Amino acid sequence: MKVVTLGELMLRLQPYDYLRFVQTDSFEATYGGGEANVCVSLANYGIEASFVSKFPKHEIGQAALNSLRKYGVDTSNIVRGGDRLGVYYIEKGASQRPSKVIYDRANSAFALSTKEEYNWDKIFDHADWFHFTGITPALSDSCAELTLEACKEAKKRGVTISCDLNYRNKLWSREKANKVMGNLMQYVDVFFGNEDDANDVFGIKANETDTKSGKLDKEGYVSVAKQLKERFSFKYIFITLRTSISASDNKWCAMLYDNEAHISKEYNLRIVDRVGGGDSFAGGAIYALLNKYSAQDAIEFAVAASALKHSIEGDYNFVSVDEVKKLASGDGSGRVQR
Amino acid sequence: MKVVTLGELMLRLQPYDYLRFVQTDSFEATYGGGEANVCVSLANYGIEASFVSKFPKHEIGQAALNSLRKYGVDTSNIVRGGDRLGVYYIEKGASQRPSKVIYDRANSAFALSTKEEYNWDKIFDHADWFHFTGITPALSDSCAELTLEACKEAKKRGVTISCDLNYRNKLWSREKANKVMGNLMQYVDVFFGNEDDANDVFGIKANETDTKSGKLDKEGYVSVAKQLKERFSFKYIFITLRTSISASDNKWCAMLYDNEAHISKEYNLRIVDRVGGGDSFAGGAIYALLNKYSAQDAIEFAVAASALKHSIEGDYNFVSVDEVKKLASGDGSGRVQR
Amino acid sequence: MKVVTLGELMLRLQPYDYLRFVQTDSFEATYGGGEANVCVSLANYGIEASFVSKFPKHEIGQAALNSLRKYGVDTSNIVRGGDRLGVYYIEKGASQRPSKVIYDRANSAFALSTKEEYNWDKIFDHADWFHFTGITPALSDSCAELTLEACKEAKKRGVTISCDLNYRNKLWSREKANKVMGNLMQYVDVFFGNEDDANDVFGIKANETDTKSGKLDKEGYVSVAKQLKERFSFKYIFITLRTSISASDNKWCAMLYDNEAHISKEYNLRIVDRVGGGDSFAGGAIYALLNKYSAQDAIEFAVAASALKHSIEGDYNFVSVDEVKKLASGDGSGRVQR
Amino acid sequence: MKVVTLGELMLRLQPYDYLRFVQTDSFEATYGGGEANVCVSLANYGIEASFVSKFPKHEIGQAALNSLRKYGVDTSNIVRGGDRLGVYYIEKGASQRPSKVIYDRANSAFALSTKEEYNWDKIFDHADWFHFTGITPALSDSCAELTLEACKEAKKRGVTISCDLNYRNKLWSREKANKVMGNLMQYVDVFFGNEDDANDVFGIKANETDTKSGKLDKEGYVSVAKQLKERFSFKYIFITLRTSISASDNKWCAMLYDNEAHISKEYNLRIVDRVGGGDSFAGGAIYALLNKYSAQDAIEFAVAASALKHSIEGDYNFVSVDEVKKLASGDGSGRVQR
Amino acid sequence: MKVVTLGELMLRLQPYDYLRFVQTDSFEATYGGGEANVCVSLANYGIEASFVSKFPKHEIGQAALNSLRKYGVDTSNIVRGGDRLGVYYIEKGASQRPSKVIYDRANSAFALSTKEEYNWDKIFDHADWFHFTGITPALSDSCAELTLEACKEAKKRGVTISCDLNYRNKLWSREKANKVMGNLMQYVDVFFGNEDDANDVFGIKANETDTKSGKLDKEGYVSVAKQLKERFSFKYIFITLRTSISASDNKWCAMLYDNEAHISKEYNLRIVDRVGGGDSFAGGAIYALLNKYSAQDAIEFAVAASALKHSIEGDYNFVSVDEVKKLASGDGSGRVQR
Amino acid sequence: MKVVTLGELMLRLQPYDYLRFVQTDSFEATYGGGEANVCVSLANYGIEASFVSKFPKHEIGQAALNSLRKYGVDTSNIVRGGDRLGVYYIEKGASQRPSKVIYDRANSAFALSTKEEYNWDKIFDHADWFHFTGITPALSDSCAELTLEACKEAKKRGVTISCDLNYRNKLWSREKANKVMGNLMQYVDVFFGNEDDANDVFGIKANETDTKSGKLDKEGYVSVAKQLKERFSFKYIFITLRTSISASDNKWCAMLYDNEAHISKEYNLRIVDRVGGGDSFAGGAIYALLNKYSAQDAIEFAVAASALKHSIEGDYNFVSVDEVKKLASGDGSGRVQR
Repeated sequence: MKVVTLGELMLRLQPYDYLRFVQTDSFEATYGGGEANVCVSLANYGIEASFVSKFPKHEIGQAALNSLRKYGVDTSNIVRGGDRLGVYYIEKGASQRPSKVIYDRANSAFALSTKEEYNWDKIFDHADWFHFTGITPALSDSCAELTLEACKEAKKRGVTISCDLNYRNKLWSREKANKVMGNLMQYVDVFFGNEDDANDVFGIKANETDTKSGKLDKEGYVSVAKQLKERFSFKYIFITLRTSISASDNKWCAMLYDNEAHISKEYNLRIVDRVGGGDSFAGGAIYALLNKYSAQDAIEFAVAASALKHSIEGDYNFVSVDEVKKLASGDGSGRVQR
Repeated sequence: MKVVTLGELMLRLQPYDYLRFVQTDSFEATYGGGEANVCVSLANYGIEASFVSKFPKHEIGQAALNSLRKYGVDTSNIVRGGDRLGVYYIEKGASQRPSKVIYDRANSAFALSTKEEYNWDKIFDHADWFHFTGITPALSDSCAELTLEACKEAKKRGVTISCDLNYRNKLWSREKANKVMGNLMQYVDVFFGNEDDANDVFGIKANETDTKSGKLDKEGYVSVAKQLKERFSFKYIFITLRTSISASDNKWCAMLYDNEAHISKEYNLRIVDRVGGGDSFAGGAIYALLNKYSAQDAIEFAVAASALKHSIEGDYNFVSVDEVKKLASGDGSGRVQR
Repeated sequence: MKVVTLGELMLRLQPYDYLRFVQTDSFEATYGGGEANVCVSLANYGIEASFVSKFPKHEIGQAALNSLRKYGVDTSNIVRGGDRLGVYYIEKGASQRPSKVIYDRANSAFALSTKEEYNWDKIFDHADWFHFTGITPALSDSCAELTLEACKEAKKRGVTISCDLNYRNKLWSREKANKVMGNLMQYVDVFFGNEDDANDVFGIKANETDTKSGKLDKEGYVSVAKQLKERFSFKYIFITLRTSISASDNKWCAMLYDNEAHISKEYNLRIVDRVGGGDSFAGGAIYALLNKYSAQDAIEFAVAASALKHSIEGDYNFVSVDEVKKLASGDGSGRVQR
Repeated sequence: MKVVTLGELMLRLQPYDYLRFVQTDSFEATYGGGEANVCVSLANYGIEASFVSKFPKHEIGQAALNSLRKYGVDTSNIVRGGDRLGVYYIEKGASQRPSKVIYDRANSAFALSTKEEYNWDKIFDHADWFHFTGITPALSDSCAELTLEACKEAKKRGVTISCDLNYRNKLWSREKANKVMGNLMQYVDVFFGNEDDANDVFGIKANETDTKSGKLDKEGYVSVAKQLKERFSFKYIFITLRTSISASDNKWCAMLYDNEAHISKEYNLRIVDRVGGGDSFAGGAIYALLNKYSAQDAIEFAVAASALKHSIEGDYNFVSVDEVKKLASGDGSGRVQR
Repeated sequence: MKVVTLGELMLRLQPYDYLRFVQTDSFEATYGGGEANVCVSLANYGIEASFVSKFPKHEIGQAALNSLRKYGVDTSNIVRGGDRLGVYYIEKGASQRPSKVIYDRANSAFALSTKEEYNWDKIFDHADWFHFTGITPALSDSCAELTLEACKEAKKRGVTISCDLNYRNKLWSREKANKVMGNLMQYVDVFFGNEDDANDVFGIKANETDTKSGKLDKEGYVSVAKQLKERFSFKYIFITLRTSISASDNKWCAMLYDNEAHISKEYNLRIVDRVGGGDSFAGGAIYALLNKYSAQDAIEFAVAASALKHSIEGDYNFVSVDEVKKLASGDGSGRVQR
Repeated sequence: MKVVTLGELMLRLQPYDYLRFVQTDSFEATYGGGEANVCVSLANYGIEASFVSKFPKHEIGQAALNSLRKYGVDTSNIVRGGDRLGVYYIEKGASQRPSKVIYDRANSAFALSTKEEYNWDKIFDHADWFHFTGITPALSDSCAELTLEACKEAKKRGVTISCDLNYRNKLWSREKANKVMGNLMQYVDVFFGNEDDANDVFGIKANETDTKSGKLDKEGYVSVAKQLKERFSFKYIFITLRTSISASDNKWCAMLYDNEAHISKEYNLRIVDRVGGGDSFAGGAIYALLNKYSAQDAIEFAVAASALKHSIEGDYNFVSVDEVKKLASGDGSGRVQR
């Protein structure tokens, strides 16, 4: 089984521990980006995962590529060239202090790349699944075109397509997102999102749910899923439900809606690193669907995979199928494994 | 607006992470001291903040000065000379294990300095506020004289004076503290303390409140504030209310008493670093009063500022007015800020 | 008072912070092993504690020895020779992700050592207590013989003997453990265990207690203790009761059964490092019994000592008698000690 | 005495020790840039040094500003705004392996800033000296205009102007550099360069000097200086003479040419960090000229200052006037200073 | 072009900086082993390089595999299973203090593996070159058989075979080495060694060369090469010539003998890490021969590649073809590459 | 064999790598002091070495004690009490930049201790040798008395006494040193010093030797030794001869004068850490004399021991007798020891 994703990989610079930006004189250097994160998840599950992007030829670009190759991601479809790798700075929050992200990703090699630079035959050779997120088309007009092209190329080869809506208001307006994403949705079979995204991009919302208050209204989420399904005919709709108690503690569960709602158990998370949580969820869900899990098993696998992600540093999720299954089957006691 | 503080700045040596003193072979080196901590808070809010002290000329003294200058504190009133900078060692507690502090501050350049070394005209030029704590007069007899002199010089220039009582039983006896602080209180407009301090220094206490048990009796605090107001005619009395569940978890709220009690909301804190919590509270309160906040807004600003401090490493508080306001207005969800 | 323990000390290699094995490119290097951990606890309480083992002559063996000498453990009974020091790798869990241990201890100098290499007269000279765990006889047949020899040598000198059952299924089968440990129990005065161990090795269990579910059935533990006492005539039976809520949070209490059950208070632990928790408990219990504490005081001291251990990095427990007493007497508020 | 410089400050990201880019997963984060480096040198000598630039408002921009403020540089002329701070990555060379720099500075807040954003009256208020390098006008056309404007504004206020030629072939072509720099030279009183720069930009060269071979031909340098003086009427010409034996060992001396050549002693450098060597030389030279040192004393001070820089990590030079004088006067034995 | 190597990869544990084993409480964790080191060199040159070995399935084995995959080595021929990964401890020497290595490699998964576990058709599919060292057959009898089998399988497919003699006296006796290696030499086309190895294993030596004294006698090396060629009919003989001045400074050159001696230029090395120097030489030589370099170009490429290795931390060599060529062509000045 | 030393042990705080004090935000924390350094050297050689001092009871005092215990030094004669442990800050020099030491040792527990606090019978029980340095009597008048008392107590028990002159001008004047040390010399059998010390304290000098110039005049040193012997009747006089080329490179040799001069070979040192060089020399010399080495063997052992020290971080020397002998016998090639 082969999954293809298309997107940007950034250098992620983070002060150690809980230092704020103004306190640090060193950065932990890892790499991350929504679609690459999904690839790493899948490679860890033993799935062939190919990341499509463009990186500069210099050593920072090479180090980014190596970060994927190290974990078994296929990097043969990464075009090399251009000047810069996007960067994002992140300081980790705690208690009432939120994590903070500063993006410096404009004009990256990928953002400036064009659809002509990619070899679709090679990319989609024996591929089963194509995944992208709403970040990729938001990066630039050429990336929007590139994403559309990828969807078309995937579709014509019968590849299943999934999209994580992931609205970023610093990258584009709601209006533009609505237009571009609205068009792309016709190719999408499997949808990932949360209520905020659905509202921000498509104006779809349920009543009375306020994610900031920490109150969850599961009925509301079902309503959102139904509206999405009606409008875009997705086969599967995944919605993640995060309750932020503080930067240190979250509750986390999710829903899979096919023709009915399948709701997972809820986890109380002590957060090590919350970034990439949604991507690890998508990675788990894709794995489960590729392996024909039942709807309930699929949602439990995906939410357990992403619960574990919150205990792992960095964007990437490093868990095995066995570890996810163990948690999904109910053992969250955290007893030492000897 | 300009705020002046007077006090000692120490080198703060802390094992990394949760290592105990006997385990470590390195120390994180930062700087801290009650009054300097207030200056950094205020400088971060955009207030001109001038720290008055004496540091040795050597590089350790210079590094201490640089730690203030880096964050925008005015260091032009720091006298240079003497032999040593005070040091304090701290290991961070967790769960049932308390943080532990070992002071090595005797005979510091500041503790041995005398009032004649300071230029009051320059120090209080265009100053609006003077802040000190009960630590400064406790350091030495000459520091007690120096503090008295500073109060007199401030008062004759019409500068508002605030004092954080901060009783340290390793520095002086209750009897001496009572005498010296009792005399200084006549100059003080704005008082900061907690019930323990008021009792230790002035014998003022409410019934039945046991801060160790974690039970809060807000009525008792009002009673303490009333007694303080009657005895010393303070304009504003701030009392912080900490409930220590463990070294990792505290509850935190506070009261401002002018002619009535204004009680803040209470925060559940996951503690990153609890030292400097009171100083960040004073910094927030001074900012709020300087900016004519209402009593309720002032106490909410001060307690939110100090709640955030507990999530930040080191003595200094690094938060902006916007960050404090966001929390004070109710958003403590800790969601990632992108 | 002198306590002797016999066992293996391993190099403990741990990624920093919460990094998983595949993420790290450095290891924190400490040393640990059940019986050595007990020695360090006791040396910290001012007890003469002698560790009996065999370490290679090379620098890694020397560093292991130094790690004990540093904390005041008597290392004069450590035989030097052989090729390798056992190693164990550990990554720290958080939230739903458990800590993970990989052992690489086969063929260590100690595992290959034989009883003839040890000088029992010197080892047990003026000794009051001998402690071992179920790990030592599990290491190899020669270690099983060595343990038996040590018990005989101790017993004939009137030394009190304690054993922590500590079943490790990667080292031997239940059948072999049952046979070897069953034979050793005749020498044992003081028994340490938990319900899982007693069941795994001796098939002794209470009904309806499921430690994974987090539910505690204290009656069940009393039942286990009674069965143990009936079968092996132990003088004191200590059973620790851990409730794993997650890898970050545990509840922790314990029972001492002599002719009746003495149950300690229960602590809510925020876990810094959970490894060595049981050993720190045994260390506390041995200290209390050597000092003729009452049964209730003994169980409170032991459980407070081990509660504190969970807040300390590494296998060793670094707490003083005063610190343990302070917690045992009820002050778990974690307020800063200045 | 007040010196003003104009230029870009970048975040400098460097793997620790001698790790190559592809090996590292952390970066030391400091800040550097030719003109800011000169400011730090001068502030360390007690000179009022004001850095003129534009930094983003976000925390990375703030941290850059703090890095200057920490060392006493006047940051009140740094405009705040724009999106990004330039970045440069550097890995440290050793032996035959050269240090390697990757720039990611395009589209920085400063590069996109325009001359209208700067307040020349405030900037040059009571200024004695204005320094810039050939990097600033190379950043963008608007920066070239900005540099020209600054020269005109300085000149009309009678401020001495110095320029370090610093040709960077990745920023512009020789042709463009020749045109822009050729025009700027009319304002310059004090020139800094090396033979490569003079040749690259102005086609001025001496025969038979090959800096790569490590052979120094001092006569050749005099010839270059004479040609420069003839063409541009500089009052002082400083030329640094580096002999690269390897990335670990360099020889370092310099020449000051006014109407005759003054050549410094030569140092054998064991290199800790070679970046910023030329800037520390300019800082020393400006200090010496501002203080009316004789030509020989000036060249000895400047070369000693920069010799010391090579032993210091980062772009900035942290040495006092006393330290420089001690070395310039002949004590390079490196004996411990107690 | 595809190169195959067969051997062991170990976890390499090294104290940071120049700390001795007894000083450290952390280890840098990298991976290394002669044949794997050659693979990494070649992968960095763009050659398909496949490493054949056996690693445990656990995460330490996985991390070892990832360390190769990260740098582009083909890991599809690494068998997974067994219990342990070999470990070696190394402390870095300086000045007169030598580096020290402690091996803990007995009973590794690879040492216990047998020839039946490897799939030679897959391993040698489209392979051009097979490389091994004298360490592999020294690990165990089964490894000796495995090496012989690999040579036979390579030879029958027309693959060029190279061997680096690499005598390790802790692994086997000279007698056994002579017998086993003597038999293997019949398959070898390209030989790597130094005079010590040739003497230790085959008793071939030149007069009057004492490598400890630092004196080099190139004539002697030619004599050794001639004897080797006469005895074993190698096509190419590479002999490296190291002059150890101290642990910090070495001289380094080499000879390629085909039918005449081609001697490289000599480098003065400031040593960052000397381990893997010989492997990087073999990697360079294999690259050069695969690319049909002339004898002189080949020896210059190989010695320049390994000169650069001495400036790089860890076993692996991270240099590009361009970097090696630049040095081989004479530019060893170490000037900053911008 | 048992050696006793008397002196102060300080916490040594050092920025990592080559960072200057103003750059660092962490310190490596080790412990050092002349006499303790000698103890560690001797303990590493297998000699019973007892350190006599006074440390505070708190954890920083305990950590200092542990640093000795870890390496096998007898700490049973360390009195516990007082308030503070002395501190010294050190930044490491490189190239032309010297290392810099800032002492903060006034009022340490040891400096304030009196001779009545020490138990001489226990201290000198079965002792063979007593060693002190000129630093101890310089710390305070009570320390001068204490040193005198120790000499008398040692002498009356027939213990050999050695003294390292070690003049520190920040601790006392030449006049006071002359008076106090002059009196103590009557008890001394074995003298350690260098020409500077002998001149500073006793006004004994040779002509024309300028240690700063790097020129060595061995004849001059013989002249100094003769004068010392005439004046004080020492049995052995050791004089170390350091030629400081730079902070990175020194030459190092030494002379033992009994009735004739025995001069060691000279080493070219690449310096890792030069502090404690003289103490490691004294440690080597005492070992050699205790073991009845010939004069030439003694001086070669001592100088080789201290040459190795310069390659080791921290005050303590960690070398074995075998390592020293290997170097003394001529193998300084630094080849890897496998």
